Amino acid sequence: MSAAVALSPEEIHDAVFAMGKKARMAAHALAVLSTDQKNAILRAMAAELRVQSAEILTENAKDLAAGEASGLTKAMLDRLLLDETRLEAVASGVEQVSKLDDPVGDILDERTRPNGIRIQQIRVPIGVIGIIYESRPNVTSDAAVLCLKSGNATILRGGSEAIYSNRAIAAALQAGGEKAELPQNSIQLIPFTNRESVNEMASMDRYLDLIIPRGGKGLIETVVSLARMPVIKHYDGICHVFVDRAADLKMAVEIAVDSKTQKPSVCNALETLLVHESVAKEFLPLVAEGLAARKVEMRGCEKTCAILGDQASGAREEDWGAEYLDYILAIKVVASLEEAVLHINEHGSQHTDCIVTTEEGAAERFLCEVDSACVHHNVSTRFSDGEEFGFGAEIGISTDKLHARGPMALRELTSYQYRVRGEGQLKAPPG
Amino acid sequence: MSAAVALSPEEIHDAVFAMGKKARMAAHALAVLSTDQKNAILRAMAAELRVQSAEILTENAKDLAAGEASGLTKAMLDRLLLDETRLEAVASGVEQVSKLDDPVGDILDERTRPNGIRIQQIRVPIGVIGIIYESRPNVTSDAAVLCLKSGNATILRGGSEAIYSNRAIAAALQAGGEKAELPQNSIQLIPFTNRESVNEMASMDRYLDLIIPRGGKGLIETVVSLARMPVIKHYDGICHVFVDRAADLKMAVEIAVDSKTQKPSVCNALETLLVHESVAKEFLPLVAEGLAARKVEMRGCEKTCAILGDQASGAREEDWGAEYLDYILAIKVVASLEEAVLHINEHGSQHTDCIVTTEEGAAERFLCEVDSACVHHNVSTRFSDGEEFGFGAEIGISTDKLHARGPMALRELTSYQYRVRGEGQLKAPPG
Repeated sequence: MSAAVALSPEEIHDAVFAMGKKARMAAHALAVLSTDQKNAILRAMAAELRVQSAEILTENAKDLAAGEASGLTKAMLDRLLLDETRLEAVASGVEQVSKLDDPVGDILDERTRPNGIRIQQIRVPIGVIGIIYESRPNVTSDAAVLCLKSGNATILRGGSEAIYSNRAIAAALQAGGEKAELPQNSIQLIPFTNRESVNEMASMDRYLDLIIPRGGKGLIETVVSLARMPVIKHYDGICHVFVDRAADLKMAVEIAVDSKTQKPSVCNALETLLVHESVAKEFLPLVAEGLAARKVEMRGCEKTCAILGDQASGAREEDWGAEYLDYILAIKVVASLEEAVLHINEHGSQHTDCIVTTEEGAAERFLCEVDSACVHHNVSTRFSDGEEFGFGAEIGISTDKLHARGPMALRELTSYQYRVRGEGQLKAPPG
Repeated sequence: MSAAVALSPEEIHDAVFAMGKKARMAAHALAVLSTDQKNAILRAMAAELRVQSAEILTENAKDLAAGEASGLTKAMLDRLLLDETRLEAVASGVEQVSKLDDPVGDILDERTRPNGIRIQQIRVPIGVIGIIYESRPNVTSDAAVLCLKSGNATILRGGSEAIYSNRAIAAALQAGGEKAELPQNSIQLIPFTNRESVNEMASMDRYLDLIIPRGGKGLIETVVSLARMPVIKHYDGICHVFVDRAADLKMAVEIAVDSKTQKPSVCNALETLLVHESVAKEFLPLVAEGLAARKVEMRGCEKTCAILGDQASGAREEDWGAEYLDYILAIKVVASLEEAVLHINEHGSQHTDCIVTTEEGAAERFLCEVDSACVHHNVSTRFSDGEEFGFGAEIGISTDKLHARGPMALRELTSYQYRVRGEGQLKAPPG
């Protein structure tokens, strides 16, 4: 690709580290901006995206031409495509973020010690956040503005297929922001896409406080194995629905079908259905009818196949850990709630799992014992995301357990600081 | 050392991963224990430490003999030494933890969405925590019981110099706990100290949710570069006191002397003193008198040396980033609050920094603009620790910004989970 320019390893190192140093300076300036200032900056960014829309679309056309020449599929080209409508959606997304509550400055804890020292734990920005992504060019804007609203500088490293669009969008955001006094270098995009730039970012723990990789497993694996700083990532979404012996079977059919088919390509879609054996004979034909109507391929355990006959094929061991992201569903009959929990904790991805039951005790056990970011009782798995949770925005869904777990929004892009005030307290007072 | 037994790389891998798998099972069991159960376990552990004190001291004697044979210094041998008094302190420390509040189950956020879905964000244990340490054998107990109280399983990897003591203490904790129904394998110590065991732990992201390295820079560097899971660490403590132009100079002298000399060997001791130029002529002779009385070597910038004459030697560039942990102090005269902040953000370690001033505006600027875990106004830097902050216990002080920053206690050993309850809500309701 044209964006992988001929740079020596030293030149790539120097370029990326120079951006890191500038980002650190920008982060110190960003940390002390008021909410009003940040919101004015966001509105100026949205305006600039509109002003520069012709230029952005021209650059986007270069990506599309290169993509066609290199044989990208129609679906991939569509992901890459920007037009007036999509660009307007990006700009109004930026305005939306200006309306969200600013988490910076929230007081998380406050205490006065017997010696009179007053301690405040207060939310502050993280600092500099690196985002490495492969997806659509709108991620450039979405990620940068969420980081900005939470007071962080960003270094963006997008994929080669969208480099022209990404450069144009990042430049418009920075230029627009500067009209409202955004500190220089608050939003920087690495202008080339050589693979080594990922390695350099991963090694730059002096300047990067956090890396968020967004993309395929290969990219995430690379970042995880190289990074010297914290990484927040989203691996698989292998989500389960467990139909308990005390389930309302009509509700269970609806939740299973909705979780599987409302949008099968996303991480919170259902992949394995677990059915309590005492309701399997009654429930499985009902759910199979609903699934067949949506053309879902069913792969069942032996007991499932015995009940469903030709409607299901036999599941293999690897089906229990599969993230199909497609109209395919693994189905297993289990002897108990306990077996369901064990199955989920062993084969799941700690993303989102649901129990359907009318029995409160069973629900509470499931919610407490399943070790996943989101555990649902009688709610479709498709609801586990930042917008549905009312966070107003989402930078991703974390399958990690440290710092941020589950849907990540502005709060998850902050750290905290202890501010300690006194009147000269000493550990060893004289005399 | 005798504890580095002859094991092949495969044997080490298999042994460590087998412990990881068992720890994961233990973690699921620990996560659902009630506070009362955990407290009973802790009391049983303390009792068993007392019952087994003779065995533990016998094992400790083996470490001391090996240490003498290998030429450890007297100070190092003293760090290794256990006796009745020290072991009693370990046991009563375990009892203290049983009296602390249990963070697990705390509701962090609660909301009901317009569609009726009820979302709870609730504290849960992290899971399995790996602790790699080089220090005294009491760390085995301190770290394990804080992890246990917060519902986590631990895999401990202590240094070779304390292996006999560590094994005896870990065995007593696990055995004592099991008398009160502690799940098997909740506390596991790697029974050998081959270097490869660190690498295996660092690669075991399937079973370890977090690694906390406690020890020298070399150990921390190794863990940071190898770890595939989050690491929470404590690098340097390069702490500053800034004496503002509006400082109460008597208070400033007391805070500088206390911060530097009350215990110079610890991470929150003062290393660089910054002095506003408008008070330097008056202040420096006063503080030099106090420091000289405690035999502190002073290394000053040119302006400092011009004022202090023979009392100070000239500081070199590396003094501004030095963590002396000794009776040495770097001193620099700065032209403004702004220069002080810039100096700290560039040369400090984001640990603890203090401003002495009577001017509220200057104090607020310093507290907001210095990017450190703990920022103090008129309080000795020596107060930045978990006990002084009223956390009741401390597993370390984090110089990271993600998940935990500054003093880390029980809350920082937890994650959270979203529990979502509804009545069959669907993303795409039928009809």
